[in-house]
Amino acid sequence: MAAMTTLKGDKFDRQLFESVLKRRFFFTEAFEIYRLSPNFKGDNRGLFDYGPPGCALQANIVDAWRKHFVLEENMLELDCTVITPEPVLKTSGHVDKFADWMCKDPIKGDYLRADHLVENVLRARLARGTRGLVKDSPKLDDATIDEYNDILAKIDNYDGDGLAELIRCHDIRNPENNNQVLPPTPFNLMFKSTIGPSAAAPVYLRPETAQGQFLNFKKLLDYNQGSMPFASASIGKCYRNEISPRTGLLRVREFLLAEIEHYVDPNKKEHPRFREVADIILPLLDRDTQLSGQTTSQTMTIDEAVKSRIIDNETLGYFLGRIMLFLLRIGIDRSKIRFRQHLANEIAHYATDCWDAELLTSYGWIECVGCADRSAYDLTVHSKYTGTALVVKEALLEPVRVEGWQAILDKKIVGPRFKKDAKFIQSAVAALDQAALERLATELSKHGAVTIDTPALSDGTTRVELTKELLSISRVAHLQTTREYIPNVIEPSFGIGRILYALLEHVYWHRPGDAARAVLSLPLAIAPTKVLIAPLSSHPQLNPIAHKLSARLRKLNIANVIDASSASIGKRYARNDELGTPLGVTIDFGSLEDGSLTLRERDSMVQVRGAEDEVVVAIKGLVEGTETWEQIVARMEGFRGRGEGEEEKERL
Amino acid sequence: MAAMTTLKGDKFDRQLFESVLKRRFFFTEAFEIYRLSPNFKGDNRGLFDYGPPGCALQANIVDAWRKHFVLEENMLELDCTVITPEPVLKTSGHVDKFADWMCKDPIKGDYLRADHLVENVLRARLARGTRGLVKDSPKLDDATIDEYNDILAKIDNYDGDGLAELIRCHDIRNPENNNQVLPPTPFNLMFKSTIGPSAAAPVYLRPETAQGQFLNFKKLLDYNQGSMPFASASIGKCYRNEISPRTGLLRVREFLLAEIEHYVDPNKKEHPRFREVADIILPLLDRDTQLSGQTTSQTMTIDEAVKSRIIDNETLGYFLGRIMLFLLRIGIDRSKIRFRQHLANEIAHYATDCWDAELLTSYGWIECVGCADRSAYDLTVHSKYTGTALVVKEALLEPVRVEGWQAILDKKIVGPRFKKDAKFIQSAVAALDQAALERLATELSKHGAVTIDTPALSDGTTRVELTKELLSISRVAHLQTTREYIPNVIEPSFGIGRILYALLEHVYWHRPGDAARAVLSLPLAIAPTKVLIAPLSSHPQLNPIAHKLSARLRKLNIANVIDASSASIGKRYARNDELGTPLGVTIDFGSLEDGSLTLRERDSMVQVRGAEDEVVVAIKGLVEGTETWEQIVARMEGFRGRGEGEEEKERL
Repeated sequence: MAAMTTLKGDKFDRQLFESVLKRRFFFTEAFEIYRLSPNFKGDNRGLFDYGPPGCALQANIVDAWRKHFVLEENMLELDCTVITPEPVLKTSGHVDKFADWMCKDPIKGDYLRADHLVENVLRARLARGTRGLVKDSPKLDDATIDEYNDILAKIDNYDGDGLAELIRCHDIRNPENNNQVLPPTPFNLMFKSTIGPSAAAPVYLRPETAQGQFLNFKKLLDYNQGSMPFASASIGKCYRNEISPRTGLLRVREFLLAEIEHYVDPNKKEHPRFREVADIILPLLDRDTQLSGQTTSQTMTIDEAVKSRIIDNETLGYFLGRIMLFLLRIGIDRSKIRFRQHLANEIAHYATDCWDAELLTSYGWIECVGCADRSAYDLTVHSKYTGTALVVKEALLEPVRVEGWQAILDKKIVGPRFKKDAKFIQSAVAALDQAALERLATELSKHGAVTIDTPALSDGTTRVELTKELLSISRVAHLQTTREYIPNVIEPSFGIGRILYALLEHVYWHRPGDAARAVLSLPLAIAPTKVLIAPLSSHPQLNPIAHKLSARLRKLNIANVIDASSASIGKRYARNDELGTPLGVTIDFGSLEDGSLTLRERDSMVQVRGAEDEVVVAIKGLVEGTETWEQIVARMEGFRGRGEGEEEKERL
Repeated sequence: MAAMTTLKGDKFDRQLFESVLKRRFFFTEAFEIYRLSPNFKGDNRGLFDYGPPGCALQANIVDAWRKHFVLEENMLELDCTVITPEPVLKTSGHVDKFADWMCKDPIKGDYLRADHLVENVLRARLARGTRGLVKDSPKLDDATIDEYNDILAKIDNYDGDGLAELIRCHDIRNPENNNQVLPPTPFNLMFKSTIGPSAAAPVYLRPETAQGQFLNFKKLLDYNQGSMPFASASIGKCYRNEISPRTGLLRVREFLLAEIEHYVDPNKKEHPRFREVADIILPLLDRDTQLSGQTTSQTMTIDEAVKSRIIDNETLGYFLGRIMLFLLRIGIDRSKIRFRQHLANEIAHYATDCWDAELLTSYGWIECVGCADRSAYDLTVHSKYTGTALVVKEALLEPVRVEGWQAILDKKIVGPRFKKDAKFIQSAVAALDQAALERLATELSKHGAVTIDTPALSDGTTRVELTKELLSISRVAHLQTTREYIPNVIEPSFGIGRILYALLEHVYWHRPGDAARAVLSLPLAIAPTKVLIAPLSSHPQLNPIAHKLSARLRKLNIANVIDASSASIGKRYARNDELGTPLGVTIDFGSLEDGSLTLRERDSMVQVRGAEDEVVVAIKGLVEGTETWEQIVARMEGFRGRGEGEEEKERL
C-alpha cells in the first residue's frame, strides 16, 4: 500500500480527517444515542446516516452519474422494489451462493470473517517480523515472508476449504485474545423477512438492483421498440448483512448502488462509440499478474488492452473508459485509480469476467465500481424457471432455408391433461435445441416416451414425461425468417458510498502549518453548497442584501447559504472550507455605499470585488464551467480580505 | 363519492386508464413473470416497479418537492438508514402500537383487514338495498340506512373492540364466500429481520423516515448553529406489511415518503411567513363535522381557519397552505383536493392533531399527505430511554433570580457504585422538575431513600433507589440564565406514490370520440420527457439534424428523446401523448432545404414552424415558464401538420 498523503503533501491523518467529517455532519453512525445508552443490546454497526452536507454531496454525485451515463446514452431507468420474494433469489443463485466464510470464536462467542482474519493476522506478522503475538516468538525467515506475501496477493482466491487449510497450517487465531477459532462456515449475506399476515412467504432485501432490471427485460425491450443494444439503469438502496463491519463507510450493511445493465448481442460485442474512449490510458492489474504474486498495475490505452485481449471486448473496454471519465469528473485523484481483474474463485457466481475500479484510500485499494460480464446467466435462469422467454427476436435480412428437427405437441390432449401447466410445457418444448431434439427423437422411437426439463410446474417439479401420443419429433425443412438469442449483459455497478468516502479522502488537506484548518477541495459541480453568503456585521441593513442575493442565486439553481451568525468572518470561512463550499460572498459597509461585494475562492483564499451583477455573473460562469477563477481574478478588482491570513488566525 | 370524470368530461374508465399506464410502462407489478409462473408460492402483492416514464415522473415530483420545501426554506436534508434496531421502535411506540386489526377467515385461511371488511360489506348492502348477499334478503329500512351511513362516516374511529362489536351485531362475513370470520386481532405492520451473524439482534424496516431524523436532533440543532425554529427533511423508502393490499399503487408495502420535521418552540407557534399563505382558500373537513355524520367540506381562508381555531395554530396553517401550493404546482386538480382532520381513535399514537390532504380518485378520497402535530412526544421518549437530552437551550435576555429545590448527587459514591450507569442516573436527577423535587425531598427526609425513574440501565431496569447518603435535596436560590425546552414537531409527510397515481388520474383524458387515443396532460415541469424529436422519414440526412438538436437540448438540461422508428408520425405522436410528452419537433425534407422545423403542442395538437434557433428558444421559454404556448403561436408561423387529425387517424 502506498503511503497516503493529503492533497498538499502532508501525511494523511485519518483521525483528524474523520473528526472534520463528523463535526460538519457529513455522516454519523446511525442510532448513535441508542448505542451510547447503557442497556443497548442491538447492533448498529455498518449503518450510517448522512447529515445535510453528506446528503447533498451524495445527491450531487448521483446527479452527475445520471447525466454522465443515463442521459448521455438514453438508458432506461427503473425503480424496482427492494423486497424480493425468495424464489427469485433462489433462481438467481443468491440464496445458495451469496455468502461469506465466517469463523466463530467459541470462547468469546463472536464471529470473524475468515478471509479478513487470515489477512489481518498475516499482515500483522509481516509487520512485526515474528510468527506469533508474544515478543519472543520465532522470527520470520525469508521463505515464510515470501509465502505470506503470496497468500496475501491472492487472498480473494481461497474458498472455504482453502481458508480452513490456511487457518490450520498457519495457526491463525483471533488476534484480540489469541483464541483458536472454529473452521469456516458459510454465512448468507442477505437480510431475510416474511411478507403478509400468514408469515408463510419468505422475502429478502435485495443485495443488488440487477435482478429487478432483468425480470423486466421483456417490458424494457418492448419500451425500446425492440431495438438492440440498449441499457437499463437503476439507483437504489441495497443490503448485505456483513459479518463484522468495521471500516466506516467502506463496509456497510445498507448502501446506495447505481447499476447499469447493458444488453448486447453475444455475437456483436463491438461498441459504436468505442473510438471515443480508445485512447484513454488505464492502469490495469490483470488476473495473470496477480497470480504471479505482483501488485503493480500496467498502464496502457484501452485500444491496446482490447487488441491484446487483456480486456475481453470493445463493449467492456468502452464502459471501463466511461467509468474512468466519470471518476475524474467528480474529482477523484487520477493517481489513485486502478482497474483490477477478479481472480477465478473471487468472481461472483453469475459472472464470467469482472474488472473492479479500485480507489486508493488510507485503508488501501478499495473496490468502488465493479464492471462484470454476466453473460446470459441471469436471463437464462429466470427464463427457465418462469417459462417466460427473455430473448431478442431479430428479423433476418434474408430468410434462410433450414432443415432440422421439429417437435409438435398434441394440444388437444396436453391442454386438458396438464391444465395451467400446459403452456409452460409448450414453452419448454419450444426451447429445445437441435441436438436435444435429435437425441429425444431417437429416445421417443425407442421407448415411446421421453422426459424433458420444464419451468417449475404447479406441483413444484421441473420435469415432465411425454409419451408419443403427446409428442412427435420429425425432420422438416422450413424458411427461417428470424433469429432468436438471449442477450449478454455487461454490468457497471457503482458503490456510491464508497466513491463518496474515497473522494472526501482525496480532496482533504489543511492550510500549511495549521492542521486544525482543514479544507475539502470538492469540485464546484459536486460541492454540497456552492456559495456562502456572509454579512460582515449584524447591522440590520446588510441582511436584506444577503437575502436578495440568495434568492437570485436560488433562481439560477445555485445552492447557497446565508451565515449571519455572530462568529468572526474567519471562523465562518473556516467552517465553510471544511464543508467544501467553493465560493464565499461577503457583504460589508462598503456594500451599503456602492453596492459592491467581495467574492472569495476557497482553495487560494484570493478575493475579488465588484458590483452585485458582476459577482453573480462570475459565480454563474464558474458553476457552468464557462470561466475559470484565474480569468475572474484577471478581470475583476483584487481585494485584501479582512479577517483572512495571519491576523485572522489569532482571532479564531 | 363524486362521479369521476376525465379532464375533458367523459366518464373515467379505470380499466382503459390502467391499460395505458401499463402499456407505456409507467409501472408494473413487481416480479410479474414469477407471479405468472405455475409454481409461485410467494407474495408479490403491494409491490410495484416503476418503468422509465414512471421513474422519471417520480424523480421530477421529488425534485419539485425538494425545490418547493427544502431549498425554499433551507431545510436540513438527511438520509438515514431504513434498517432500524428494535429498541428504537419499541421506544417510539411502533412495536406495540403500529398495527391494523385483521380477521381470519378460518375456513378459507385468508386474512382480511377488519375496517375494510366492515366498510366493503356495508357499502355493498347500501348499494344493493338489502341486508344480505342473497336476492330475497330483508330490505334495508330507513333507520338501518342511516345507521350504516353513520358507521361509514366514522369508520376510522373504531378500535378492535368496536370493530368486533360491529362485525357481531351486523353479521358481517367474508364477502367472497359468506364465511363467518374470527374476531379482529392486531397485526403489526412492520417487516422484521435480524442483523449480524448471531441473529440475536432484531431489526425492522422503518415505517416512516421520522425516527432517524429525531435521533439526530442534537446534531441537527448544532449544524443549524443552535438557531430555532428549523426543519429537517428526508426522502426515502419506507415499508408497511399491509394485510391485504389490493388497490394498485394506493396501498403498497414499499413506498417513497418525503417527510419534513419542523421543530418549533411550543410557546411560539406563530410562523414568520404566515402572511404569505393566509389568504389561500382551503376545503376543510374538520373532526366535529365528520362526527356529526357529514362528509361535505367547508371552504375558508387559512387565516379564518386559524382565527376560529379549526386549525390549531399558525405553523400548522402555514404548512397546510404550502402543501396546497405544492399539489397545484405539480398539476393536481384543484377541485379534487380536501383537507380532512383525523378522528380521535384514528390518530397515530404519537400525534395530538393531524390533517390529511386527500385527493379524489376513482377509489374515492385518498390520504396523500399527512400533516401531524407530533408535539414533543418522540423527542421526549427517546431522551428518556437513552439519557441523551434532546432539548433546546435558549439564553434568557435577562437572567431571572429563582428560588427552588435543588438535588445534589454525591459523585464520589455514585460513580464507583453505578459505574457506566452513573451518568444516566445523573441525567435522570437533573431532569426532575420542581414538583417532583418537592415530593422527593419530603420522602427522602421521611424514609431516608427515594426511587426515581431512569433511562434503561445496563441491567435493563428503568428505576433506581437512592439513599440520603447519595442524594440530598434542598431549597436554594440561584440566577437562571437559560431556558430549556423540548421542541414540538409539526410533520408534513408526503406519500409520493399516491400523489403520482392521483396526478395521473387527474391529467388523463382522450381525444374526443376516440377512447383509444389517450393523452396525459402532465405539466411541462413534471413530464418525464419534455420533447419528442421525430424525423419524418428514414432519409439518412434527417438523422444528423435530430441528433444535433437532441444534444443541444440535453445541454440545456431539457429531457428529450429521438424516435426515428418506421412507425407513422401519427403513431409516434399518439405514443408520446400517452407518455405525457408536451412537445414534439418533426424534421422533414423542408428542414433539409431551409433548416426549418415543426413544433407541436400535445394538448391542442397545434403546430408552428420556424428555424432551429427559433424552435429552441420557444422550447426553452416554455420549459422555464417565461413564455406560454399561446404567445408562441402568436409569434411563430402556423403549420398544418401532416399526419394529424382525421386523415392520420385512419392510418394508425
